[in-house]
Amino acid sequence: MQLKVQPLDIKVGKFKVVLNTIDAKELGVNEGDRVYVKDHESLTAIVDTTEDMIAPGMIGVYHEVAERLQRAWTEPVEVMPATRPKSTEVIKKMMDQEKLTEDEIYLVVKDIVDESLSDIELSSFITSSYINDLSDDETEWLTKAMIDTGDRIEFETHPIMDKHSIGGVPGNKISLLVVPIVAANGLLIPKTSSRAITGAGGTADLMEILAPVEFNAAQIKEMTEKVGGVIVWGGATNIAPADDKLIRIEYPLSVDPHCQLLASIMAKKGAVGADNVVIDIPTGAGTKIPNVQAGRKLARDLINLGERLGMNVDCALTYGSSPIGRTVGPALEVIEALKVLETGEGPNSLIEKSAVLAGMLLEMGGVAAKGQGHNLAIETIKNGKALAKLKQIIEIQGGDPNVTHKDIVVGEHTAELRAQTNGYIIEFDNKRLVEIARLAGAPNDKGAGVLIHKKRGESVEKDQPVLTIYAEKEWKLSNALVNAQRDMPLIVEGMLLERVMDVREIQS
Amino acid sequence: MQLKVQPLDIKVGKFKVVLNTIDAKELGVNEGDRVYVKDHESLTAIVDTTEDMIAPGMIGVYHEVAERLQRAWTEPVEVMPATRPKSTEVIKKMMDQEKLTEDEIYLVVKDIVDESLSDIELSSFITSSYINDLSDDETEWLTKAMIDTGDRIEFETHPIMDKHSIGGVPGNKISLLVVPIVAANGLLIPKTSSRAITGAGGTADLMEILAPVEFNAAQIKEMTEKVGGVIVWGGATNIAPADDKLIRIEYPLSVDPHCQLLASIMAKKGAVGADNVVIDIPTGAGTKIPNVQAGRKLARDLINLGERLGMNVDCALTYGSSPIGRTVGPALEVIEALKVLETGEGPNSLIEKSAVLAGMLLEMGGVAAKGQGHNLAIETIKNGKALAKLKQIIEIQGGDPNVTHKDIVVGEHTAELRAQTNGYIIEFDNKRLVEIARLAGAPNDKGAGVLIHKKRGESVEKDQPVLTIYAEKEWKLSNALVNAQRDMPLIVEGMLLERVMDVREIQS
Repeated sequence: MQLKVQPLDIKVGKFKVVLNTIDAKELGVNEGDRVYVKDHESLTAIVDTTEDMIAPGMIGVYHEVAERLQRAWTEPVEVMPATRPKSTEVIKKMMDQEKLTEDEIYLVVKDIVDESLSDIELSSFITSSYINDLSDDETEWLTKAMIDTGDRIEFETHPIMDKHSIGGVPGNKISLLVVPIVAANGLLIPKTSSRAITGAGGTADLMEILAPVEFNAAQIKEMTEKVGGVIVWGGATNIAPADDKLIRIEYPLSVDPHCQLLASIMAKKGAVGADNVVIDIPTGAGTKIPNVQAGRKLARDLINLGERLGMNVDCALTYGSSPIGRTVGPALEVIEALKVLETGEGPNSLIEKSAVLAGMLLEMGGVAAKGQGHNLAIETIKNGKALAKLKQIIEIQGGDPNVTHKDIVVGEHTAELRAQTNGYIIEFDNKRLVEIARLAGAPNDKGAGVLIHKKRGESVEKDQPVLTIYAEKEWKLSNALVNAQRDMPLIVEGMLLERVMDVREIQS
Repeated sequence: MQLKVQPLDIKVGKFKVVLNTIDAKELGVNEGDRVYVKDHESLTAIVDTTEDMIAPGMIGVYHEVAERLQRAWTEPVEVMPATRPKSTEVIKKMMDQEKLTEDEIYLVVKDIVDESLSDIELSSFITSSYINDLSDDETEWLTKAMIDTGDRIEFETHPIMDKHSIGGVPGNKISLLVVPIVAANGLLIPKTSSRAITGAGGTADLMEILAPVEFNAAQIKEMTEKVGGVIVWGGATNIAPADDKLIRIEYPLSVDPHCQLLASIMAKKGAVGADNVVIDIPTGAGTKIPNVQAGRKLARDLINLGERLGMNVDCALTYGSSPIGRTVGPALEVIEALKVLETGEGPNSLIEKSAVLAGMLLEMGGVAAKGQGHNLAIETIKNGKALAKLKQIIEIQGGDPNVTHKDIVVGEHTAELRAQTNGYIIEFDNKRLVEIARLAGAPNDKGAGVLIHKKRGESVEKDQPVLTIYAEKEWKLSNALVNAQRDMPLIVEGMLLERVMDVREIQS
């Protein structure tokens, strides 16, 4: 069918066209079907239908299609019904809990990366993954497909080290310490990090205060080879690009399917050629992993998947019910991390957690003897080598290597939240803490966040400050404060009946 | 946040806005989140983000939002983050296979009807329904919610009769016979029908050749009270409107979740106040119901759901592996149906199936003694009362009551498919038959379709025609013919070793 083109100057993230229902019927296609649009260029697009927006005889083409066709709009294009991509059949098989082949999984991932699937199809893929999960084989193939559909880094020198944190614990700025500690000991660690989606600051948000974080795979390789490590934003690379496209669907559904979680982590590690990976699994109330059993299960699955992909994976179940250190929000967290590197002093939870994870990497990389990694990590902080290495990393990424914690600017508007009674802090709600930091402007306003004066188990006197909220804008401070006061993120109780310390608890 | 409005003149079927990522970050919202847009009018809209399509400081509003705001675009609007609708939490519970309450299910259905859910959320709802299904209680509540969120018809006279066919068998034009037979015997039957989505012609597509089919609930009631029955398009009414919105999602996923299938059928029956319902369940290879066991299960579920909703439901498992009658496609089917009513003669499969289903309704409605419904139905055809009633129905819907089968125009372009050998027709592929009819132009080109000369089990001689393809347009005929010749929809075998008749088989 010949149709005249009506460009719709809107980006929809995929090839999509709009047909009048009369033409759609004539073509025998329904909403959600595909048509083949043929011109000098040709492409397959997903069909939307309308009764009045596009006149009969016309085809509305969204930005992506218009851009691909690249033409004058005077001549009609040829439009024909097209079959659905084979990947939609694979999604149907997933819904039916049928086993998939390696090729089938690749088809789906390829079409995800190519934006060939509609939101309806992608959501069904995620929902099916969530409900039915995938087998070990299928998860391995999913991971490989995610690696193969993006850029890869191949280092000549080995071993390559990497680290990942499952997330869910506020103030987890440890990568700013772990990466330089590991690199300072001669190992290569090309760390790609994420920005916060629902959190108050991802490692990429933090590092961006010190240096640019947007680089491609070739640049990451080059910088890592020069100074031993980088801390960059994974979203700016084309490494495992399927991941971000899936997160777009997972986010509104509030799910992170088990097989996708595994594949997403390990694909990013596999694509940078990691040999040894340490994965931090924050566990406990308020985190993504409710208890030690679930944490162990996840650890086993990660180790197993690593083995299948030729990576050594070690996992650390860490205490996740309390923030790491005493700051939440990009600038505050950077200050805290820099201070530790500059002075060798700081919150125990931050130093210990960083040293434990860095120590594991140092041992895996063969630069510390078994059981000596932790000590070497602490030493690398104390002797200033970690700071020196971070400065090199900052410099190679284009930041100012002379930066100190005093140069980091926090929000000028502050308010304190004070204890209403004498007693101990017996509850501290991670999610509320992040909510308050976000209301104050984090992670977008880098200076916004929360400084924690008193943590769980610590005693406080009436009217003593327990939290200071920082904001760059007064109205955001006010929003955050009102919210915090209405429903305090912590509970102070006059008498602590019993204190049950988790054995893995590392707290200042 | 104050943003200037940039109208995007595109309908997207829901309240949707586009923010620059800078403003989205400042607001703390991600793609898929909601914002509250406040003006004289206020509304909640789903957020899309862009890096360049909409400038910072602007909010792109799609047609539906622009229409609601109804204003000059010079003044900015206030935009605030909004929480997700509670129904999204219910969908999450469905994914987790948690039991839902009646109120929760109502929330979801209400938001589906109000277009408050994104495609991602709707697809997750359908996929979860498909994989996890719903309990009997939940299915009942789903059905009630689908009834309550649309128009209802309340008749003063009872009983109200209704009929539904599960579909999946080509040429199933029986409603054109069943409705007038039932109405001719003094019962009320306000039949809403669908158009074909993947088929070659729904009852609404067929009836439209004889009379208009688009009416609202009040008109359906009035017409039914006057002449005893109607045959209208359900999609034009606001009866159980959730159904069409769900089909939009189910179609690209090629699924029809069991609970949705039940609810969709019974909601439409409940909304018109049906007391007695007969449901035709075509069973066998090529239909939606693969075997008798699955058919019985579906029948039990429908009967059970009817009981919960106060409706008497009888189900007929019918032979579905062969077309009903010898025509597929709107005009051809109407001709075949009219001929039966005009002459009392015609394909046994059509007359018998119509008489069986109409007979069940006549018995349920109390106008035929038990076991006498079938005879009364046949008599109503033979004595011309069914034809007279159909003419009344055609007239009240605005068609020409003097129409005869000779007035119906079929496509002028025809081609014959001939047997390549002597023998018996041993296989007849329903799906291929429909595909050929659709390629020829059905259901949109009313005159397009397929006439079947030889059905399964019948003998044929070499070069005898087995099918005639009709089309309104020559190029469509050619497409259909090429397709049919490449992969014949039937197999002729020289010798029939054994003929296994299904006991429920009704074939001419």
